[in-house]
Amino acid sequence: MNIRPATAQDWDAIWPIFQTIVSAGETYAYEPTTSKEQGYRLWLELPRQTFVVEEAGEILGTYYIKTNQAGPGSHVCNCGYMVAPAARGRGLATAMCEHSQQLAKTLGYLAMQFNFVAASNEGAVRLWNQLGFATVGRLPKAFNHPALGYVDALVMYKTL
Amino acid sequence: MNIRPATAQDWDAIWPIFQTIVSAGETYAYEPTTSKEQGYRLWLELPRQTFVVEEAGEILGTYYIKTNQAGPGSHVCNCGYMVAPAARGRGLATAMCEHSQQLAKTLGYLAMQFNFVAASNEGAVRLWNQLGFATVGRLPKAFNHPALGYVDALVMYKTL
Repeated sequence: MNIRPATAQDWDAIWPIFQTIVSAGETYAYEPTTSKEQGYRLWLELPRQTFVVEEAGEILGTYYIKTNQAGPGSHVCNCGYMVAPAARGRGLATAMCEHSQQLAKTLGYLAMQFNFVAASNEGAVRLWNQLGFATVGRLPKAFNHPALGYVDALVMYKTL
Repeated sequence: MNIRPATAQDWDAIWPIFQTIVSAGETYAYEPTTSKEQGYRLWLELPRQTFVVEEAGEILGTYYIKTNQAGPGSHVCNCGYMVAPAARGRGLATAMCEHSQQLAKTLGYLAMQFNFVAASNEGAVRLWNQLGFATVGRLPKAFNHPALGYVDALVMYKTL
């Protein structure tokens, strides 16, 4: 398993992962109908850097890192992670999160923040807790889940 | 005192307010060195709508409203308010915040969120509390204040 910077050429392989996760509407604050072109802009262009997890030439996961707030907030970064459904349960999210924390420190960030973790996404919340993130905020009914309706969203934070 | 939609022609009058507040670096998550052109984009183009407070032909304050998170978060809005230093203490922030809450309901939003209130900005925190906003999150040392150093930032939230 190799984590390397994403290139524009990777988007065709990233897109099925992105689209599966985003169209489900259960975890990410993107429009579920986001197009392939819009997704490219959101995932590959707007972030500071984007990475892929590759194994035997196949892309199994991807993450981005960006500055969370400009100016007086620019020492805190934000990341988002996606794992291909077929590659779940193999520790890719952990590997990407640890990679991103190392990278964040190299880039000079002092902390990492997740702005909008659906409280219903219990696996993610448990994993971020295990990796040292604290729940520092709870946004009442801020996440409109397609099956569960309005659920709370969590703000999670780790000093690096 | 009249609150009306901002036009592109208003930017010359808004800019001194924006620049004074942003260059101080004490309250807003914008680069303190934001240029007039960048400020136009941030304050007048990117938000969903922007308003000004006008009195006798003079612009004394301004606010924007935008959707805070896309997709599953798009029922929650975010606003930012600025008052000209010479017009402080006259209730403009309260008037704008109440105006924005009415507008938010008209636009179909169910809640309003402030993502990044410097805990050192005690006047703002007190005012948002008075206007019904709860502190739902506290980001440790997330705000780099020019005089105080790293202070906490608050996430404030009101169901409309």
